[in-house]
Amino acid sequence: VARPVRLSAQDAKSKLATLRAWTIQEGKLQREFLFENFVQAFSFMTGAALVAESMNHHPEWSNVYNRVAVKLSTHDAGGLTDLDFEFASRISRLAP
Amino acid sequence: VARPVRLSAQDAKSKLATLRAWTIQEGKLQREFLFENFVQAFSFMTGAALVAESMNHHPEWSNVYNRVAVKLSTHDAGGLTDLDFEFASRISRLAP
Repeated sequence: VARPVRLSAQDAKSKLATLRAWTIQEGKLQREFLFENFVQAFSFMTGAALVAESMNHHPEWSNVYNRVAVKLSTHDAGGLTDLDFEFASRISRLAP
Repeated sequence: VARPVRLSAQDAKSKLATLRAWTIQEGKLQREFLFENFVQAFSFMTGAALVAESMNHHPEWSNVYNRVAVKLSTHDAGGLTDLDFEFASRISRLAP
């Protein structure tokens, strides 16, 4: 597998436009997901964990009850790569 | 079920002495768990999620790869209660 290449700011911006509700802050692709309760929030996290492990690309994320905050970047590339946008797209499909 | 009562600082300190590796910082009972990899970290989180839901007492927590940081307090009581120490004790038993 080729190592992911860090996207230019312009390329990242273009890719961001393909996602809904995500932002780029402090160099990371970020979103907060809101659910009805903890069971739904953790069910989402479980699905996202399977995506993360299958992509070997893991988020920085936190949870408080019905909220899940996700921050993505590619450590090996020192910034955002296609992997982050792919992961964002895939886990977005797991949320309502 | 009786509402949990906020523990005095002295009582919290006494209870803290019964736990290993936890600290009280910023009024919250805190610990970072380290695992070998993401699968082990998320497996722990899954177990802890079941404990949380069964106790109806949910953590503030974050994960990056093999690290899980947990912060506990009882929102309804405005501080630490027996619930936090009970939850801490139970999830500690899920970690290696």
